[in-house]
Amino acid sequence: MVYLDNSATTPPCEAARQALLKTLDENWGNPSSRHTLGVDADNLLEYSRSVVARKLMANHDEIVFTSGGTEANNLAVFGTAAARRKGRQIPRIVTCATEHPSVEESAKRLGDIGFEVVFLPVDKYGRVLESQLARAITPNTVLVSLMLVNNETGTFQPVKQVKRYIHAARSNALFHVDAVQAFGKIAVFPGEYDADLLTISAHKIHGVKGAGALYVRKGVTISPRVFGGGQEQKIRPGTENLPAIAAFAAAVEQLPDYREVEKITALRNRLVTGLHAIKAVINSPEDALPYIVNFSLLGQKSEVLLNFLSAREIYVSSGSACKKGLPSHVLKAMNLPQKTLDGAIRVSFSHTNTETDVDTLLVALEEAVTSLYGN
Amino acid sequence: MVYLDNSATTPPCEAARQALLKTLDENWGNPSSRHTLGVDADNLLEYSRSVVARKLMANHDEIVFTSGGTEANNLAVFGTAAARRKGRQIPRIVTCATEHPSVEESAKRLGDIGFEVVFLPVDKYGRVLESQLARAITPNTVLVSLMLVNNETGTFQPVKQVKRYIHAARSNALFHVDAVQAFGKIAVFPGEYDADLLTISAHKIHGVKGAGALYVRKGVTISPRVFGGGQEQKIRPGTENLPAIAAFAAAVEQLPDYREVEKITALRNRLVTGLHAIKAVINSPEDALPYIVNFSLLGQKSEVLLNFLSAREIYVSSGSACKKGLPSHVLKAMNLPQKTLDGAIRVSFSHTNTETDVDTLLVALEEAVTSLYGN
Repeated sequence: MVYLDNSATTPPCEAARQALLKTLDENWGNPSSRHTLGVDADNLLEYSRSVVARKLMANHDEIVFTSGGTEANNLAVFGTAAARRKGRQIPRIVTCATEHPSVEESAKRLGDIGFEVVFLPVDKYGRVLESQLARAITPNTVLVSLMLVNNETGTFQPVKQVKRYIHAARSNALFHVDAVQAFGKIAVFPGEYDADLLTISAHKIHGVKGAGALYVRKGVTISPRVFGGGQEQKIRPGTENLPAIAAFAAAVEQLPDYREVEKITALRNRLVTGLHAIKAVINSPEDALPYIVNFSLLGQKSEVLLNFLSAREIYVSSGSACKKGLPSHVLKAMNLPQKTLDGAIRVSFSHTNTETDVDTLLVALEEAVTSLYGN
Repeated sequence: MVYLDNSATTPPCEAARQALLKTLDENWGNPSSRHTLGVDADNLLEYSRSVVARKLMANHDEIVFTSGGTEANNLAVFGTAAARRKGRQIPRIVTCATEHPSVEESAKRLGDIGFEVVFLPVDKYGRVLESQLARAITPNTVLVSLMLVNNETGTFQPVKQVKRYIHAARSNALFHVDAVQAFGKIAVFPGEYDADLLTISAHKIHGVKGAGALYVRKGVTISPRVFGGGQEQKIRPGTENLPAIAAFAAAVEQLPDYREVEKITALRNRLVTGLHAIKAVINSPEDALPYIVNFSLLGQKSEVLLNFLSAREIYVSSGSACKKGLPSHVLKAMNLPQKTLDGAIRVSFSHTNTETDVDTLLVALEEAVTSLYGN
């Protein structure tokens, strides 16, 4: 099996598996219970929080665990909107056209209920223009939400500039960064971009499904989206998913050194060279995160190619898993021609991938080109 | 160890553990991915949904998986409110004073944003009066939300009558039942109460934390609370927590026959007889679900007693885990005297408990009474 769809999900690492098993066998207590079993579970919960916080160079109480990236993104968008909606002015949300559906659809929903939502266009590399970003931020802007790395192309957004533009516009907008695809691959420090909110997810970094986190900078107040018991500083109530959270922390502790990116760059280059040889068009910009390579084999349908590869136990994606079967809004926003959209394939690496994986894919793609074009 | 806090959480059963492990080792794909790994994961997801649906005598597509009971309750309350808020009339929500915080706090939040919220009082047994319930439901009532079984006392609410009162009031309110504490202990069929929405949770029935479900009756439309990809019929987007969902289904398949309730009734009676002998006051009504026994040792503080027992590896609760340390709003609503509130203890059984568990608790309680009263 050659698994090259790591941006959709990753297999749990052994450390995550072990940590999860320990919560099933020993630490199955409810962290809110006052007896020893509960206290032990709570200690493990807080230890897990420290691990995640340290990785982000954040404070312990700046981490709010959620059920995943989608919930964390929703909490950031709606939590800011509810906390900042005041008076008569129409509040503005600034985001971009290529965000993950969890930000895109949340922002659209706010548009339906009276917010002014700006979806900034992107250039052919999938990047927002800083001049447009700067102009879009107004004094009544309450939130700017940008991905650090796009999930379909690996494109970096200019997150380091955002807070400067917010200040320049005399806005007190919060700045949210969706770092789901970047976390664990490159260093992700919310402080580096002066971010107020930042989303990460466990199952993209060899943890298990069911846990994500929202970094909420100290002093920043957002409204909860879920109401109930007092868990997670009352920002995200409900019995904590300790099995997934403990596995999340274990996966974080196992993350490779960031120099790993050099290995992945070599894999990416090997892939891109091979793709050029079969006349594929590379849709990801050259300076994208090397973990994600989006390309098109013109004249092919992604779906057909994906099935051809899947039958050979080579797993890639035709776009975001969360857009199941729908045409990519990301590539569309990049103004790519229809035939490029129709044949788009995303390869996404993890540090577990090898040169052999790339070579196996390339051989299969060559075969596909020969046999499918032949039809 | 004697674990008598099963209403807070339960240890995962072996079947749940095995099902979860299988998702880590084999079925770790993203159910939204279009390749074989994704399709296999999706098949397991839909199989799990069928298992849960069958247990509720519901249709397959009436089950929406969530991260747990709290999220399902929030989705029911806010999802109905958003879908039914129309025109100029102030919409009314009818619920009761002893609901779980996830319903109580959600309803309060709706009260803050323009809904009229009625928290029906309860009698000394913790039960709402049907006459008051009937009167509270008006034509502009959009939601009635009642627990099937209270989590602190085991009190049953008169859920079978609700839909009749809704019709009598010429209201088209939806009826939501929080069945978290009842599910798996007694037969829970939403059709039996003509419920439109019904909440259940995995970790209360020997599944694992991180999965719950909301039954949404066919034809009933509620608004999503989370926005993103199209997962869970667009009502609850985000990568599905397949590990917890598969474990949930496995736990459901392992649920004992409902005749088990006779065994638990015997345990309850044994406990109550012993409690009477040490002059404890029983706060749960006689016709409560026998799985939950709330009592007070007058003159004792719950916290002290709980610690005394915890030191002997006997785990009970001083109320709801979700109310961590706060005085019980349930017992307060029942108008119990302060000293009863101060000394309240909840014992909650699972089908795994034995007579020995009860006897061990009773011996320890006698010891506590002697040594603690002695001070």
